[in-house]
Amino acid sequence: MSTQFVLSGRARALTSSAIREILKITERPEVVSFAGGLPSPATFPVERMREATEKVLREAPHAALQYGPTEGFAPLREWVAARLSRPGAAIPASRVLITTGSQQGLDLLGKVLIDEGSKVLVETPSYLGALQAFSLFSPRFGALPADAQGIVTDALDAARLSGARFLYCLPNFQNPTGRRMPLARREALVALAAEAGVPLVEDDPYGELSYGGEALPSLLSMNPDGVIYMGSFSKVLAPGLRLGYVVAPEQVHAKMVQAKQAADLHTPSFSQRIVHEALRDGFLDAHIPSIRSLYAQQCERMLAALEREFPPQARWNRPEGGMFIWVELPEGLDSGVLLAKAVERNVAFVPGAPFYAIEPRANTLRLSFVTVPGEKIDAGIKVLGELLAAEIAALPAVA
Amino acid sequence: MSTQFVLSGRARALTSSAIREILKITERPEVVSFAGGLPSPATFPVERMREATEKVLREAPHAALQYGPTEGFAPLREWVAARLSRPGAAIPASRVLITTGSQQGLDLLGKVLIDEGSKVLVETPSYLGALQAFSLFSPRFGALPADAQGIVTDALDAARLSGARFLYCLPNFQNPTGRRMPLARREALVALAAEAGVPLVEDDPYGELSYGGEALPSLLSMNPDGVIYMGSFSKVLAPGLRLGYVVAPEQVHAKMVQAKQAADLHTPSFSQRIVHEALRDGFLDAHIPSIRSLYAQQCERMLAALEREFPPQARWNRPEGGMFIWVELPEGLDSGVLLAKAVERNVAFVPGAPFYAIEPRANTLRLSFVTVPGEKIDAGIKVLGELLAAEIAALPAVA
Repeated sequence: MSTQFVLSGRARALTSSAIREILKITERPEVVSFAGGLPSPATFPVERMREATEKVLREAPHAALQYGPTEGFAPLREWVAARLSRPGAAIPASRVLITTGSQQGLDLLGKVLIDEGSKVLVETPSYLGALQAFSLFSPRFGALPADAQGIVTDALDAARLSGARFLYCLPNFQNPTGRRMPLARREALVALAAEAGVPLVEDDPYGELSYGGEALPSLLSMNPDGVIYMGSFSKVLAPGLRLGYVVAPEQVHAKMVQAKQAADLHTPSFSQRIVHEALRDGFLDAHIPSIRSLYAQQCERMLAALEREFPPQARWNRPEGGMFIWVELPEGLDSGVLLAKAVERNVAFVPGAPFYAIEPRANTLRLSFVTVPGEKIDAGIKVLGELLAAEIAALPAVA
Repeated sequence: MSTQFVLSGRARALTSSAIREILKITERPEVVSFAGGLPSPATFPVERMREATEKVLREAPHAALQYGPTEGFAPLREWVAARLSRPGAAIPASRVLITTGSQQGLDLLGKVLIDEGSKVLVETPSYLGALQAFSLFSPRFGALPADAQGIVTDALDAARLSGARFLYCLPNFQNPTGRRMPLARREALVALAAEAGVPLVEDDPYGELSYGGEALPSLLSMNPDGVIYMGSFSKVLAPGLRLGYVVAPEQVHAKMVQAKQAADLHTPSFSQRIVHEALRDGFLDAHIPSIRSLYAQQCERMLAALEREFPPQARWNRPEGGMFIWVELPEGLDSGVLLAKAVERNVAFVPGAPFYAIEPRANTLRLSFVTVPGEKIDAGIKVLGELLAAEIAALPAVA
């Protein structure tokens, strides 16, 4: 008989991500793509990476090419712990796990904390990659109400949180909305979670990309024993290295290490040592301002184009950092339909619906402003504005 | 209340690997360790890696540091496909998925092919890392009878295989036993699996490390549509890069790609490009003979020491390749007890029991011969021989 490949239930439930399929279309060079979550390659510190690589291959080639500990390269773990520590909230390096990109942290988290049917709380909307990673372990999602300032803590009480395996959120310049949670809401959320005994999972790939003003304290710094924190070098150095980290209380850390051992033994020793070498002498603090300044400029350019080209019925936020603007179209419009028409005119973005754990809102979309040159931002937003105006004109009149 | 971290059932079932705990002990430089599965760093082509890295960072720095496709770097996928293709059994590059080490292939396989309670067949004994990866998805293991030549196909019929999600085996220089499956058994296994409609998973990290004689055909080459093949650059280049690959029929490949997207988005672009660059111009075929020659010499040294130092009641195999020798002690001895005494005398190895999916045999152990210098092989085996003789002398006399 022919070979029978019987797929697992979780594999049958897997569907390819909308972002992924769109990225395939937008690989054509003539497409102006606001779809990808790719950092601008102009921000990659190529020379610094070259120097760091040479040094690692000169000084420790055999260690860099050999198997290493599952927890990660010790000096890099210490660097992460020192960077995240705050007065009164020291983070020991023993809580740091180096991961193969932040995405792996999400997979490991799902593995060690989610059983079939477990209650998992997320923002409305939330990061698609997290929803995908968690979904493989069949949780029951609860979506918390959110507005332009993130989770609406006033609308919550501890009972609403109670019994959840964890509450996952991105307080800084969230993917997909670009929104940031203000201090008062952070404090309220940490207090509510502590009252309910529910762990918070703070995903923070964009925290360093603030365009101005004060950095807000992390949830981790407010309650180190109640928060699992996830960070990444993808947005501040380069994503092609696939380096992230998870900080977790000892008990969870130990289980994540075991799960990681089965997942990929360890993250490449080679790239861990290179990144640690590149980070020495405060390099990041010297480098990040150039990323912030570029992205702030790109963001202003897109906001100006939106003001100029988009019909008044569309609404969007003014991000204070990060890589994304979130657009809400009038009710009744479907951004998936808009995308099909936009792609015909060589413009792309990501429809908002896949970012909702439950009750997707089809009239939303995400725009990334970091990789597209200024003139193309203008031209692309103009096309979207025209298409949108036509869509709105075709809506049935409301009595 | 204090935060409640409720672990998933699979996390509660996770236990730290015996190998891992032993490796911690054996990090002390005075320990002669036959425990690790680490390749010898003397075989790492440092100069070639340096040249390849320089070229990648000179010619394509931004692409190497940017996000890449989940399937892997296309030229590397093509290289793998070409290397595995045989006359009459061409492997299309579209079936190749680059993974973050071969271990990740095992995790993805578990994710897409195992439901709770699924029947999964393995050899007796089998690779511990595979048992760990699959266990996270709660299969029901079946262990197939095996001898010094691998799975005893004469003892099987299609009914015994029937209904399994897959049969996992390492035909070449298996970890932990070092044994190789002869051609006739390979043919019989492929025929039986085809008759039962059961997919074969062929894990082949050591296939290139044959010390002499002909390479035997892969199971993949015998039935490309019925075999999932896993390979690695860890043993022929360097493990610290964490680069492996899985070749699978389209339907399984597509699901593994989706699962990988949720697991780590993609394997580092940086290391994929470096390895592809290093492999050009037939480098591997020039490089591998030096690894074979070193390992063959190390193996002979350990075999000679075993002949000299071990009591006649112990038995072991003579590997034709790979990195391991498998030792069977007299019934009634526990290699875990022997290990505790050996570590006191600064010698380490891996007890065999954790390599059994079911019915562990405590009187077995694995010796790795590749990283320890010759004189230390002699000294370490002498210590083990003495301890073993004492253990045997203490066994209750059989009437």
